[in-house]
Amino acid sequence: MRALVLSDGKLRLANIDKPIPAQNECLIKILCAGICNTDIELLRGYMGFNGVPGHEFVGQIITSSDPKLMGKRVVGEINIGCGACSWCRSGNKEHCPARSVLGILNKNGVFAEYITLPAENLHVVPESISNEQAVFTEPLAAAIRIVQQVHLNPEDKIAIIGDGKLGLLIAQVLQSNTIFDFTLFGRHPERTDQLKSCSAIKIVTNYESNRYHAKFDAVIEASGTQDGFLQAINMLKPLGHLILKSTVAEGSQLNLAPIVINELTVTGSRCGPFAPALRMLENGSIHPENMISAAYSLDNWEEAFKTALKKGVLKVVLTP
Amino acid sequence: MRALVLSDGKLRLANIDKPIPAQNECLIKILCAGICNTDIELLRGYMGFNGVPGHEFVGQIITSSDPKLMGKRVVGEINIGCGACSWCRSGNKEHCPARSVLGILNKNGVFAEYITLPAENLHVVPESISNEQAVFTEPLAAAIRIVQQVHLNPEDKIAIIGDGKLGLLIAQVLQSNTIFDFTLFGRHPERTDQLKSCSAIKIVTNYESNRYHAKFDAVIEASGTQDGFLQAINMLKPLGHLILKSTVAEGSQLNLAPIVINELTVTGSRCGPFAPALRMLENGSIHPENMISAAYSLDNWEEAFKTALKKGVLKVVLTP
Repeated sequence: MRALVLSDGKLRLANIDKPIPAQNECLIKILCAGICNTDIELLRGYMGFNGVPGHEFVGQIITSSDPKLMGKRVVGEINIGCGACSWCRSGNKEHCPARSVLGILNKNGVFAEYITLPAENLHVVPESISNEQAVFTEPLAAAIRIVQQVHLNPEDKIAIIGDGKLGLLIAQVLQSNTIFDFTLFGRHPERTDQLKSCSAIKIVTNYESNRYHAKFDAVIEASGTQDGFLQAINMLKPLGHLILKSTVAEGSQLNLAPIVINELTVTGSRCGPFAPALRMLENGSIHPENMISAAYSLDNWEEAFKTALKKGVLKVVLTP
Repeated sequence: MRALVLSDGKLRLANIDKPIPAQNECLIKILCAGICNTDIELLRGYMGFNGVPGHEFVGQIITSSDPKLMGKRVVGEINIGCGACSWCRSGNKEHCPARSVLGILNKNGVFAEYITLPAENLHVVPESISNEQAVFTEPLAAAIRIVQQVHLNPEDKIAIIGDGKLGLLIAQVLQSNTIFDFTLFGRHPERTDQLKSCSAIKIVTNYESNRYHAKFDAVIEASGTQDGFLQAINMLKPLGHLILKSTVAEGSQLNLAPIVINELTVTGSRCGPFAPALRMLENGSIHPENMISAAYSLDNWEEAFKTALKKGVLKVVLTP
């Protein structure tokens, strides 16, 4: 089969063997795959990953030991746990110390014609959800993770920092609950189009962050920049809550004293639940497909990654 | 009166005017004052403080508008709020943006013969508590703040990093609840003498922190070092809780990626409640006076600070 293979920092299109599913696994034909910022980071050496990258997908089950699953269109959770440790047994396989992660850690990913995944990782996609919507299930679940971890209070003033793909998804998740008072801080006025159906949201795209000093009870940092982290700390009221969705560049010079002085709480947030993500897509409360800037076939992968890196581009998808 | 005055980074003994209490304030004669690491930091330029440093004290009320308070022996909360803002009105004057802080911010402190403080900041000291015990009320309250902020679970494995004054106080606070399973990590075997009454506590003084990778549900960082912070992150299980009691040196190179990947929560922790601190001193469950390494008069302040800086020395107290 054709697949993009990352080896020693170089990506290339190659013909590799179709994967053979383990006993608990299904073979899945990829219908559509999304390029995530994490994939770009992998190409830059993050995680030291060698293999087929890619973890956002919708696909069709080709072989399965469960006849009910045959032929179904599915999305899949990306963490594959050992199944035996206390993390796996308590439903937290994303923290299994022996886990593999689709297209990120010890498991070939979705920039290929076929993948394998355990049946327990798969969620059947309702018919009314298009492939272009379903491919957002994984990042949407990651946005939903915030409200799974942190109790946001109706009286809280909430800020999201970053109007990239993740920031926009988080904004759309929060606006699903009209009780929230939240503001999206970004640098791209044109992206507000993505949110024009969200009447409740306040969007600030040209700002001096000191104007917002100590104005928010909760800040969600989704810019992945050191500046975003410092802004978040600066914008929080004492006793406020910072939710870190993206990692800040390693080895940054960071002053953590305000966390102690203002008694802030910082919570890291990673992968989220698929069921509510599919529910939001099905009930039409979110339309992430508007974020697709371009679609390419695997053969045109070089063009696809070039486009994904361009300023102003949001989601780029690949179809084998 | 005699007082230590910090001016442009230089400390000196001076004769200054006795402070005049405002309408809501009492005049207090200092009986005993403690030198805190924060005072050492102030001498190095922290907070840019000019004035009389010192915030740990026990004293006697000389003048008060409340006759019931006259002559009483008291300890005092160090944050003085505006009294009008939402923080002050909700009982969080330590986060009042217009606050002054005794001996730290816009308010002369306790390395002097007299201070003034609002009556509402004062707590009468029960007779059975000695001056040498009472002078620990403020740092003991800061240790108690942890269990005020964070729900420690009886099943949690808890670590304290740092066997300085604060780490030892935190250990004594946690061991007051024999249900907890906790370990103190330090570098000073001789300090375990301070805790010999604490049968429940495990003390590790010679360790390679990688041996404790992902072993703890909650870690309290009380070493104030970058190494302590990194150890804490390393020792935490996924979904673990880091309580930051002391500020890490500004501008350190810190990699926050593990906070996101392991979905850790970090909570900053500062000043705490005085009533439970006095209760613990009164009921004899804690004996911080054993930490006093030396006592000096104000006149011998140079010797006192020299001693406080010596390796192995714990608390140094000053009596006017």
